[in-house]
Amino acid sequence: MIALQTTPDAVQGQQKPLYEQIYLAIRRDIEDGRLPCGEKLPSTRLLAANLNVSRFTVNLAYEQLVSEGYLQARAGSGFFVCDLSDLYDGLTRKESARPESGQTGVRAAMCESASQIDFSPFAVDGEHFPYRSWKRCSKDVLDHTDDLLLTREAEGDWQLRETIATYLYRARGVNCTPDQILVGAGNEYLLMLVVQLLGAGRTVVMDDPTYIQAYEVLVHAGCRLLAGASDRNGLLCDTAQMQQADVAYVMPSHQFPMGTVMPLARRQELLDWAAARPGRYILEDDHDSEFRYVGKPIPSLQSRDRNDCVIYIGTFSKSISPALRMSYMVLPRHLGELFRSQYGFYSSTVSTQQQLTVSRFMQNGDFERHLNRMRRIYKAKHDFLLRELKRRAWVARIQGENAGLHLVVTVKTDQSEKVLLEAAGKRGVQLYGMSSYCINKEQNVAESGVILLFGFGGLSEEQILDGLQILDEIL
Amino acid sequence: MIALQTTPDAVQGQQKPLYEQIYLAIRRDIEDGRLPCGEKLPSTRLLAANLNVSRFTVNLAYEQLVSEGYLQARAGSGFFVCDLSDLYDGLTRKESARPESGQTGVRAAMCESASQIDFSPFAVDGEHFPYRSWKRCSKDVLDHTDDLLLTREAEGDWQLRETIATYLYRARGVNCTPDQILVGAGNEYLLMLVVQLLGAGRTVVMDDPTYIQAYEVLVHAGCRLLAGASDRNGLLCDTAQMQQADVAYVMPSHQFPMGTVMPLARRQELLDWAAARPGRYILEDDHDSEFRYVGKPIPSLQSRDRNDCVIYIGTFSKSISPALRMSYMVLPRHLGELFRSQYGFYSSTVSTQQQLTVSRFMQNGDFERHLNRMRRIYKAKHDFLLRELKRRAWVARIQGENAGLHLVVTVKTDQSEKVLLEAAGKRGVQLYGMSSYCINKEQNVAESGVILLFGFGGLSEEQILDGLQILDEIL
Repeated sequence: MIALQTTPDAVQGQQKPLYEQIYLAIRRDIEDGRLPCGEKLPSTRLLAANLNVSRFTVNLAYEQLVSEGYLQARAGSGFFVCDLSDLYDGLTRKESARPESGQTGVRAAMCESASQIDFSPFAVDGEHFPYRSWKRCSKDVLDHTDDLLLTREAEGDWQLRETIATYLYRARGVNCTPDQILVGAGNEYLLMLVVQLLGAGRTVVMDDPTYIQAYEVLVHAGCRLLAGASDRNGLLCDTAQMQQADVAYVMPSHQFPMGTVMPLARRQELLDWAAARPGRYILEDDHDSEFRYVGKPIPSLQSRDRNDCVIYIGTFSKSISPALRMSYMVLPRHLGELFRSQYGFYSSTVSTQQQLTVSRFMQNGDFERHLNRMRRIYKAKHDFLLRELKRRAWVARIQGENAGLHLVVTVKTDQSEKVLLEAAGKRGVQLYGMSSYCINKEQNVAESGVILLFGFGGLSEEQILDGLQILDEIL
Repeated sequence: MIALQTTPDAVQGQQKPLYEQIYLAIRRDIEDGRLPCGEKLPSTRLLAANLNVSRFTVNLAYEQLVSEGYLQARAGSGFFVCDLSDLYDGLTRKESARPESGQTGVRAAMCESASQIDFSPFAVDGEHFPYRSWKRCSKDVLDHTDDLLLTREAEGDWQLRETIATYLYRARGVNCTPDQILVGAGNEYLLMLVVQLLGAGRTVVMDDPTYIQAYEVLVHAGCRLLAGASDRNGLLCDTAQMQQADVAYVMPSHQFPMGTVMPLARRQELLDWAAARPGRYILEDDHDSEFRYVGKPIPSLQSRDRNDCVIYIGTFSKSISPALRMSYMVLPRHLGELFRSQYGFYSSTVSTQQQLTVSRFMQNGDFERHLNRMRRIYKAKHDFLLRELKRRAWVARIQGENAGLHLVVTVKTDQSEKVLLEAAGKRGVQLYGMSSYCINKEQNVAESGVILLFGFGGLSEEQILDGLQILDEIL
């Protein structure tokens, strides 16, 4: 693709830091026109392998080039050479790359946005993903499966469902057989199916704030949605909303976004609420229960269900990757039978190849090894972010610690959430305000200040610190 | 896994046919207990590679073992050793494997069902799939993509959508930009989205018989469905149903299941119908237009749409594989904008890895090479089936020739469809009756005889002939 002048030996043999050598070599190629505008650079992984250096080193070089306006990172595509024709010379490039308007500004803004520090609560760690074992599983499936072209059952490949059932029992205490499991292309799709299984016109109660995507899907699928009242133990069960509702959508192990963990007594109240009237259901969204950093994992609500009223939904979005687009649900036995008898016209929404790859990844132990490793890595990030936040005068309150991939932080400020997010965005820091997750936007604001979600899954400690230091300047 | 006694050299050096040597070696292992009951055999691909013989040869051996009751083929899982403990000796095994009742009967029935000749109209050819180039694309994506863990836009990866737009323009005359394309996990899911975009309570008219899965999805999504009247040119546009409807679901290039091709004049009538009242839409399902065996391909209805009223849906189910679970639709510009502005809560339903693999498969020309090759292969199967059917006295009429992956055959018989399907099923031939695709079950029956769909995509010429010969005996 690109004839980099830095060969492995040259890189290893010189005095300057490795990343700087790579940076200089690429900069020279760009300035000389050997790497023309728009050209795509090799991936950091590929270049790291070619140069026999770490990906971190290549990343550092690329990030430097991005921040100086030589390269542009396009989300999901890679790094591309910027148009330098209307820029000043190399020495003033950094300054000149950020004018206020004009074509250069647009380009610079595009380049700048790439260097963002994104505190997304949904991002996962891409640096420590076990690419090697994932690739091995993928390649094994490609090499050794005779029937890649054959569709699987609408509910998912049987062996995959067996594997998920075994895992869920061991990790989450979920009681089920594989025929209760339905694998699908993400939580939103599974929720659409749940609404069809339960019948239209259901009244669903949710916490507020909540996982707002689920709220939107349920509304658009024809449900009536109610914002339930919650306390520090989660959804309250003796409210008027709960009396009206016949479905409760909850995240008892770690409520999104507040991080509330529902204690046993409240869980039992919720199960009693469901049992009190026929046809009531609990939708248990167990989205990130894999990551709990203190104490013992809390078994699922489903594990205590004696009335076949809990529909359990889990996802690989945080345990593997959101890019996998793969979730699963455990249906009460009668709903599983209903699906098979009445909804046979739905095909599976996950490819055979991908189902078999995940199945293999779980069966050979890679999945649990990965989870154990990520738990340590995420705990370190969590602890680091928590420690850094506690040092800051602008932090009024921290909630939702010790689990998941984000913290909930009340920030002392006179600025509105909108103004604060925009100011941070201009400095390359992407923040997430609590208001996006509120059903009733006017409620659920901090008495004073602004509530933010600080996701740490996709950031390094350096990035976390950089982001917080930029906020120090803004706040 | 299994210590097969036939080594490659031994296989190549002896006199008996290769498949028989393999068959004998495995049979001996099973009878000696070296391959115990329930043991999984290596895939035909793997064993063929190990023995340096063709997959066809291994398949022949496995099929012989299945038909004799030594092995059981589980759909989607592979081949497993049957329980022989309650069978007679080898010589009478074939007969003894088909008693009328009891445990042996169940097992025998399971084994028997595996040797089926399946005339499914949805099956594709697995023997000639370009596994090598598909694997290369998959591995390239795994090796050279930095951001496998990053989700793509809800509508699908931009580069994939560019590639699809280019392909659709060239192959189907579809006029669109990538921002009109939405990639999703199968037609059913896309139809669920369409209903949300168009708003609930729509009245949809379809041909009868039709692609009944779409009918079911639309009904369950809250639409009112009407069976429209058709003639040999497709859906009639001046009927009472068309006056009531505001959406017409059609397959103008090759109607499923009848195989009707809608001529230009009727297409224009349909477009005029849509233009006559605001808010009317045409859902064009272009499911198998890749496979047309005579004349020039017919451009899509979308290519003639001047009023932004055609929603075009395509799929990779037939062009690559139904196991891919991947479709795409081309939305009129205003619906694409509506999706982006109002439905941002939906995530993509296809994994990044798979989107990039398909993108690469299309970009490097593998996809079109594959289509050109399969067109020849399917044409040969189509011609063979057609020739063989015409020879048969029990064939009254053949429809839907020269395109797609099935023929529609009216069979002279006094038996009912149900009785005929059961009789064939008992002989290991899976048939598909037209009644399954009828909205009004009581209508749409042949005046005399039974109408069947004969899919040929997934069958070899030998299997087609075997299947027809079994039908010769039944009819």
